[in-house]
Amino acid sequence: MRLHIITTGGTIDKVYFDAKSDYQVGDPVIGDLLRDLGAALSFTVESAMRKDSLDLTDADRALIRERAEACEERHVLITHGTDGMVATGQALKGLADKIIVLTGALQPAAFQRTDADFNIGCAVGALQCLPAGVYIAMNGRVFDIDNVVKNREANRFEALEA
Amino acid sequence: MRLHIITTGGTIDKVYFDAKSDYQVGDPVIGDLLRDLGAALSFTVESAMRKDSLDLTDADRALIRERAEACEERHVLITHGTDGMVATGQALKGLADKIIVLTGALQPAAFQRTDADFNIGCAVGALQCLPAGVYIAMNGRVFDIDNVVKNREANRFEALEA
Amino acid sequence: MRLHIITTGGTIDKVYFDAKSDYQVGDPVIGDLLRDLGAALSFTVESAMRKDSLDLTDADRALIRERAEACEERHVLITHGTDGMVATGQALKGLADKIIVLTGALQPAAFQRTDADFNIGCAVGALQCLPAGVYIAMNGRVFDIDNVVKNREANRFEALEA
Amino acid sequence: MRLHIITTGGTIDKVYFDAKSDYQVGDPVIGDLLRDLGAALSFTVESAMRKDSLDLTDADRALIRERAEACEERHVLITHGTDGMVATGQALKGLADKIIVLTGALQPAAFQRTDADFNIGCAVGALQCLPAGVYIAMNGRVFDIDNVVKNREANRFEALEA
Repeated sequence: MRLHIITTGGTIDKVYFDAKSDYQVGDPVIGDLLRDLGAALSFTVESAMRKDSLDLTDADRALIRERAEACEERHVLITHGTDGMVATGQALKGLADKIIVLTGALQPAAFQRTDADFNIGCAVGALQCLPAGVYIAMNGRVFDIDNVVKNREANRFEALEA
Repeated sequence: MRLHIITTGGTIDKVYFDAKSDYQVGDPVIGDLLRDLGAALSFTVESAMRKDSLDLTDADRALIRERAEACEERHVLITHGTDGMVATGQALKGLADKIIVLTGALQPAAFQRTDADFNIGCAVGALQCLPAGVYIAMNGRVFDIDNVVKNREANRFEALEA
Repeated sequence: MRLHIITTGGTIDKVYFDAKSDYQVGDPVIGDLLRDLGAALSFTVESAMRKDSLDLTDADRALIRERAEACEERHVLITHGTDGMVATGQALKGLADKIIVLTGALQPAAFQRTDADFNIGCAVGALQCLPAGVYIAMNGRVFDIDNVVKNREANRFEALEA
Repeated sequence: MRLHIITTGGTIDKVYFDAKSDYQVGDPVIGDLLRDLGAALSFTVESAMRKDSLDLTDADRALIRERAEACEERHVLITHGTDGMVATGQALKGLADKIIVLTGALQPAAFQRTDADFNIGCAVGALQCLPAGVYIAMNGRVFDIDNVVKNREANRFEALEA
C-alpha cells in the first residue's frame, strides 16, 4: 500500500507563538510524526492549505477533492480540523476506487496529552482494511461519512445510528 | 463493536523502578490510555499475565488462546511483548468468527517518544474493518499472522512477502 | 523554608479549548506540577488573577504586591506571563526581608516541549539560596530585577549588563 | 557565569533497548536538554563515565574529583545516579573556591513524567546563588552535602536535620 497524505491545517497542527501570545496553524506534523513513530509505510505528503476548519470555503473543499482525485495513490489520508471534517468528507464522496480517511486531533500534536498519534494510528490501520469510500477516524472509531456527526458539547465524534 | 482486551505484559507496560535501578513489567496501561485519549469504545480489559514475551511458555500461550476463545466478544485486542508476538499469534489461529489483533510497543508507553498510542490506534482502527482472523498491528501496518516476521536487527515488523 | 506561591496567569497556564479553537489561561498548574515532580517542599498556592501579562493593570500589580507583603512566608514564588514580568518585578521592590522570584514559561506547561518544569526548578533552587530582593528566573538564569529585560525578538530574557 | 558539566551516568541517562528488553545508560542528555529548553548559559560538557551509581568505585570518585578540580570553571554541575550521589559529594569536599552541585533524576529523562528538567533547573538556579561548597539539588531542595541522605524507602532525598 502506498499512501498519499493531504494536510489542511486544524488543531492537530497548532503551535503556540509566545511573541504574539497566540496559537497559529504551523507546519504539518504528520510526516515527522510517522517517521518518529517508526511507521514502515511508503507515503507522500502535500499541504493543501493551513486553516482552521471553520474557515474552510467551498473553493477549499473543491481543491481538496481535486487533489484527492489527482493523486496516483488509491489510499488517501487527510488531516483536518475537527469542526468542518464531516462537511469536507461529504464533499469527497463519489471518487471511484479511492479509499479516503479523514482524521485530526482534539488537542494539538504538540501537547503532552494529545490524541494525534492515536488518531493517525487508527486512520492508518483502517485505511489498509477498508473498501473504497470516505471515512472519518476519530475517538478510536471508524465512521462511514454518512453515519457520523461531531457532538460539539461532548467534544467527540459519534455515529448517527449506533 | 464491543472490544475485549487481553494484556500479557511486554515492553508497552514496562516501568522503571529506581529502587532497583531496573525496568519491570508494571500495571497494564491500555485501559487508562484509551480513556485518556477519549476513545468512544465499549471495552473490557483482563490481565492474563505480566511477562516479557521471551519468557512466555506453551502453557502461557494456551491460556491466552483459552481466554480469547472464552470471551463473549468477537473483537479481541491483545497487548504483547514484541519478540514472541508472532508465535503467540500463530497459537491463536483457527478460532472461528473471532477477529484478533495483537499489538505492543518498541518503546514503553511511559516514554516521551513511545509508539504505544500509535500502535493501539492502528490496532483499534484495523479491528473494526477486518474479517475474522489473526493479525499483528505494528509499525503502522496490519499484517496477516501468516505473513509477518520481526526483523530484530532493524527492530521492526515486516511482511514475509511484500 | 516554607514557600508561598502566587499565580497570575500567563503562558505557563495556557490550555487549548477545541470548542473555541482557542488558547486560554486555565487553572494554575504549579501545585500539581510540584506534587507530580516529587518536590519535598512545604508550600501554599493562591491564585491572584488569570491574565495574559500584557493585560495586567497598575491595580493588578498593586494587588500582587499586597499579597506578597501580606503572606507570612519570607519566600515567595510568582508565576507570571513573560511580557509583563519585569514590570511586575519592579512593582515588588522594597518589601523588606522578602525573597521574591518571578518565573513563567515561553511554552505552556501542557506542551511536550515546555520550559515550565525547568524554569520552576530554577526558581525554586534560587529561592533557597538568595538574599532578600526581587529576581526573575528564566532561561536557566537568575536575574536581579534591576538587571533584566525580555528580548522579544529572540524570545528570551537577558541581562542589561553581562 | 561559565558552567562546566561532568556527566557520570545514572538513571537520568537511562534509555530502553528493545532488542535486549533491557535498559542501559545511554548518551548524556543534559547538553541537548539545556539547548532544547532555551537555557542562555555558557557551558561545556564532559562525560567522565557511564555507570549506575551503585557500581561506582573509589577510583571513579577520584577521577570525578580530578576533573572537577582541573576544569577552569568555578561552577561545576555533576549529573549522577541517585544511590551513590551522597558518597560522591563527600569525595568532592575541600576543593577551594569551587561551587559544585550534584543532581540526577528518579525517573529517566526519556520518560513522560521525568523529574530531570526540574532537577537540572533547580541545580542551575542554585549554582548561581551559592557560596563555594558541595551541594545536592534533588526533590526541589538544595542540600549541603553534610546534611543530606537518600531515603530509599520513600525514594527521595531528605535533610539529616530539618
